[in-house]
Amino acid sequence: MDIKVIAFDADDTLWVNEPYFRKTEEAFFELMSDYLQQRSLERELMKIEIGNLPLYGYGVKGFILSMIEAALKVSDKTISIEVVDRIIQLGKNMLDEPIELLDGVEEVLKTLKGQYRLVVATKGDLLDQERKLRKSNLGHYFHHIEIMSEKDEANYQKLLRHLDIHPHELLMVGNSLKSDVLPVLNIGGHAIHVPYHITWEHEMIENNIEHENFKMVNTISEILPLL
Amino acid sequence: MDIKVIAFDADDTLWVNEPYFRKTEEAFFELMSDYLQQRSLERELMKIEIGNLPLYGYGVKGFILSMIEAALKVSDKTISIEVVDRIIQLGKNMLDEPIELLDGVEEVLKTLKGQYRLVVATKGDLLDQERKLRKSNLGHYFHHIEIMSEKDEANYQKLLRHLDIHPHELLMVGNSLKSDVLPVLNIGGHAIHVPYHITWEHEMIENNIEHENFKMVNTISEILPLL
Repeated sequence: MDIKVIAFDADDTLWVNEPYFRKTEEAFFELMSDYLQQRSLERELMKIEIGNLPLYGYGVKGFILSMIEAALKVSDKTISIEVVDRIIQLGKNMLDEPIELLDGVEEVLKTLKGQYRLVVATKGDLLDQERKLRKSNLGHYFHHIEIMSEKDEANYQKLLRHLDIHPHELLMVGNSLKSDVLPVLNIGGHAIHVPYHITWEHEMIENNIEHENFKMVNTISEILPLL
Repeated sequence: MDIKVIAFDADDTLWVNEPYFRKTEEAFFELMSDYLQQRSLERELMKIEIGNLPLYGYGVKGFILSMIEAALKVSDKTISIEVVDRIIQLGKNMLDEPIELLDGVEEVLKTLKGQYRLVVATKGDLLDQERKLRKSNLGHYFHHIEIMSEKDEANYQKLLRHLDIHPHELLMVGNSLKSDVLPVLNIGGHAIHVPYHITWEHEMIENNIEHENFKMVNTISEILPLL
């Protein structure tokens, strides 16, 4: 391996994220419990979220709007306006959640800084990701923050051009096979999968990747001996 | 002048934007006309938008959420749920608006390409700005697209680092004195103001800038003889 740049996914790789979405969903299901069973609500919300992705993209604001839309749809517009107010508040609370670093993250960054150029490569909302990075106090470890509207091959190619490196000089570390691993392997880069215990259904794919540039570890600290 | 990079603001500099916000506001005021006079509604909405900026940032999704919040507040939560549905639809329509280039834009870009590195420097929502650029068919003129959460001095400094140029080698062209002109002059760059006939109140400042690096023109085509 001739790695020059290590790119880290942010949400659920550097810090806790998905559990906040789940907590908010739970509160939403509670608000809506007069209308539908949780299983059906979950399906309905997921359908609306996925349908809105091309328009809203990833991030909390689109999620709030999708919850409101789901509340209207599931209740056939009979829901109380109070529920809309509560959903907006749930969303604002999410945007205000503290940052909880995952175990080992800071040591890994400290060890690798100086040996490699470290970057963050994340999708989601620009302002929100900047705020999380600021709150994390990890900003000084990183040379560059790349926020992508979608983590696809084209956007990883763009990242390579920004960084002025060859594909085989990039190592991507993240919790999503779909967003952090597959597109990077496809353009000739290296990828390490660090699974997180919860993954958004939309990010889930069958895990049977065999590739010479691919490794899987249990915790982020385990990437150190591989480098 | 020793300009190497010309950065263009996007909304209301390259293409029409603010009129879509105004059109949507008009429709919102219409929906809410039972509750408050337009003047007071405008003030209420503006207050809520500004209050939400640190949390939501710029862009359509935050605007939709602020309209819903304003509808709840102004009606003291007596508004019909139908109105919430209509507001969400207004927002989706905005995200789907066609791109209408401003007069002279394409000729200016065609003329300057090859002589300067051209970039877009815009704030707002990442996905939304990428979509607008794609729809505009202007993408091939630009070397780089910088989407900033806030157009302040720190973010312009970051742009200079990305582009690897000195401040005096940057010329920014845009319709907002607050976002496109002042911070650029403050870090030692050049700026040309191309006013647009409508400006969001939040972007308005007193216009009495006198600075050797500053010029004002009436239309974007008038920047050509200045270069």
